[in-house]
Amino acid sequence: MTNPSNSEIDIVKSSKSKIKDVDFNNLVFGRIFTDHMFVCDFIDGVWQQPKIMPYQAMSFEPSARVFHYGQAVFEGMKAYKDENGKIWLFRPDENHKRINKSAARLAMPEFPRDYFLNGLETLLKMDKEWIKSGIGNSLYIRPFVIATEPAISASPANSYRFIIICSPAKAYYSGKVRVLFAEKYSRSANGGVGFAKAAGNYAAQFYPTALAQEKGYQQIIWTDASSHEFLEEAGTMNIFFRINDSLVTAPISDRILDGITRKSIIQLAEDNGITVEVKRVPVTEIKEAARNGSLKEIFGAGTAAVISPISAFEHAEEVFEIPDNEDSYASLFKKQLLEIQHNVSQDKHHWRHEVK
Amino acid sequence: MTNPSNSEIDIVKSSKSKIKDVDFNNLVFGRIFTDHMFVCDFIDGVWQQPKIMPYQAMSFEPSARVFHYGQAVFEGMKAYKDENGKIWLFRPDENHKRINKSAARLAMPEFPRDYFLNGLETLLKMDKEWIKSGIGNSLYIRPFVIATEPAISASPANSYRFIIICSPAKAYYSGKVRVLFAEKYSRSANGGVGFAKAAGNYAAQFYPTALAQEKGYQQIIWTDASSHEFLEEAGTMNIFFRINDSLVTAPISDRILDGITRKSIIQLAEDNGITVEVKRVPVTEIKEAARNGSLKEIFGAGTAAVISPISAFEHAEEVFEIPDNEDSYASLFKKQLLEIQHNVSQDKHHWRHEVK
Repeated sequence: MTNPSNSEIDIVKSSKSKIKDVDFNNLVFGRIFTDHMFVCDFIDGVWQQPKIMPYQAMSFEPSARVFHYGQAVFEGMKAYKDENGKIWLFRPDENHKRINKSAARLAMPEFPRDYFLNGLETLLKMDKEWIKSGIGNSLYIRPFVIATEPAISASPANSYRFIIICSPAKAYYSGKVRVLFAEKYSRSANGGVGFAKAAGNYAAQFYPTALAQEKGYQQIIWTDASSHEFLEEAGTMNIFFRINDSLVTAPISDRILDGITRKSIIQLAEDNGITVEVKRVPVTEIKEAARNGSLKEIFGAGTAAVISPISAFEHAEEVFEIPDNEDSYASLFKKQLLEIQHNVSQDKHHWRHEVK
Repeated sequence: MTNPSNSEIDIVKSSKSKIKDVDFNNLVFGRIFTDHMFVCDFIDGVWQQPKIMPYQAMSFEPSARVFHYGQAVFEGMKAYKDENGKIWLFRPDENHKRINKSAARLAMPEFPRDYFLNGLETLLKMDKEWIKSGIGNSLYIRPFVIATEPAISASPANSYRFIIICSPAKAYYSGKVRVLFAEKYSRSANGGVGFAKAAGNYAAQFYPTALAQEKGYQQIIWTDASSHEFLEEAGTMNIFFRINDSLVTAPISDRILDGITRKSIIQLAEDNGITVEVKRVPVTEIKEAARNGSLKEIFGAGTAAVISPISAFEHAEEVFEIPDNEDSYASLFKKQLLEIQHNVSQDKHHWRHEVK
C-alpha cells in the first residue's frame, strides 16, 4: 500500500483556546483535553491525508465495528516541558513500535512512523501552552486506532481512524496503593492478546477490580490464568518486587505488556548496580519473603502512574503489610526517571526526544 | 436506581423508507440496516427515556470510553415472518438475560426487561416490511451497549448507550466450512470474559482467523488456553460433534458462551431421542473418532449462522475430511429449528414469541 505525499498535515486551528478554563492544580486524570487533536483515516488500504483540527465530537455509524467487536488499540505517552520551555517526549519510538504490534495482533493496519511522529510533534507544538513545566506535571498523550467500517460482520474492518488526543496530567495515582493478588479472575490467556494494548483487555478488568475495591484494594495483581500461582502484571502497570536488594519482575510474554517504564527501570537498576532478576514470580515466594522480612518493596510501573509504591497485598484471605522503606527503589527510580524525562539529568541512553 | 415512567418510547419516524433500494436476494451480512433504531442512554445512574429514531450516524467524543477500553457488550437475535405475516422472535428472554450477564461482567448497568422487549417489539413493528417471510429469511437484530463517558481513566464509565439496530439477513455461512483446531492462539482464559458477548472477545480472534484463512480454513475451533487439549467453541458458534449416533458438546464455562442455539439443539436432540453428552471434548478423541470412522459430523451452532456443517478439520498439520452424511443431524436440527422459528411447526417448548 502507498501513502500520500509524505505526511503533510492538513491543519485547522481552534478559534479560541479553552486553556483559561482549566485549573491545572486540580486535574482529574483524562477528563480535560487540549485544543486540538490529530486524525488520520485508513480507507481502501491507504492512510489518508492526516489532519489536525479542534478537539471535537465526531460522527460514527452505530454499525461501526469498534462498537461491536472491540477492534481498537491504544498507547499512553507523556510530553514534558523543561525549565527553558523545551518540550520532550520519552522513548516515543517504543510507543510507535508497540501500537503497531498491538494493531497487528488485532488484524489492524500499521501506522507509518513519519505520520506518527510528525503528527504528534505538530500537535504538541500547537498545544504547547498545555504542557506545564515542573516535575510531576506532564501532558498525557493518547494515540488510538478504532475500526470504523459500518458493517457488523465479525471480521477485520476495512476502514480505521487513528486519533491522538492529549490531556494535562499530574501523577495518576496519589499515595500508596493496596492490592489483591488474583485467585479466580484472569486478565489474559496464553495465546491471547494480553501483551497488546487492546481495548478489550481493560474493560475485562473493571468488574474484578470493582470487587477488589469493595474489599479495600485499589488494584489487582493478575496471576497466570492457568494456575494463578505466578504474579504477572497489574493491568495498567507492570509489577516489581524488591527482595532484599534484588529487583524481581516477570518476563514479558504473550500475556504481559512490554512496558516502556518497565524496561527503563530494568536499565536504571543496572545503571545503579542493582541486581535484576527477570523470572516467573511465584505467589508463594512473595508471601514467604513478606513473612521472613526479605520483601522490602512492591511497586507498579507504567506511563500514567510512573511508579506506584504498594503498601500491602492480600492473597488467600491473608493480608501482608509492607513496611515503609526510607531508601526505597520506588523513590529512587521515580526520581531518576522524572529527572531524565524533564531534562534535569543526563540522558545516557538517549531516551529523551526533543520536540522542535 | 429508578427508571422513568414505564418504558414509554419517544418516537421519531423516518420521512422516507430506504427499503426500495435494497436487493433482498443479494444481502451481505450486516451491511444494510433498517429505517429505524432504538436508543436509550444511561446517565447519572438511570436509564433515560427510550427513543426510536431514523437509523443515523451519532456523535461521540473521541474520549468516549468504548474507544479506549472496549467496555461494550452485544447480543445477536433474529425476527422471522410467517406466511400469514405474523412476526416472531425466538427465546428473546434468553438474549435479555444474557446481555445483562455480559454487562455485569464488564461492570456495566443491566438493562430493564420491559425496556428491552417493548423497545425491540416497537422497533420491529415499525420496520416490519424489512422482515421477509420464507425459511432462511430473517431480520438480524443487534442490541448493544457501549460506554460513552468522555474520560479516559481506566475504570467503569458512568454513562452508557443501549442501541438496537436491525439488518435483513440470509443464512450467515453458505456451504460447508473447513476449520482449524487451535494449537497456539487462544480465545479466552479461565476467569476471563469468554462466556460474555464482550466486544473485545471478537477482535482478538481476527488475526488468528486470518492466519487460518490463509491456510484454507474459514474458522478456528478454539481449544482451552491452558493445554490446547480440549475443544471449546468457534468464537461465533458453539460446536457439536456426532460420534456414531451420539451428540457431544463442551459444557458452558467462564470461557464458553451459553449459546441459545446450543441449548435449543440439546433440547431438540433429546426430543428426537438422540443421546447428548455434555462433556469436555479432547482433541485426541475427535481425531481418533475421525480415524476409526465413528466421527460422523461436526457442526457449529449460533444465531447468525443457525447451523454450519463442517466438512474438514486440521490439527497438528494433519487434515481430516468428514464424509458427507445423508441423514445428518445438522440438517435435521436446522430444519426443526427453522420450522419452529418460522411458525411452521409445533412449538412444544414455547420458544416462539409473537410480536403483536
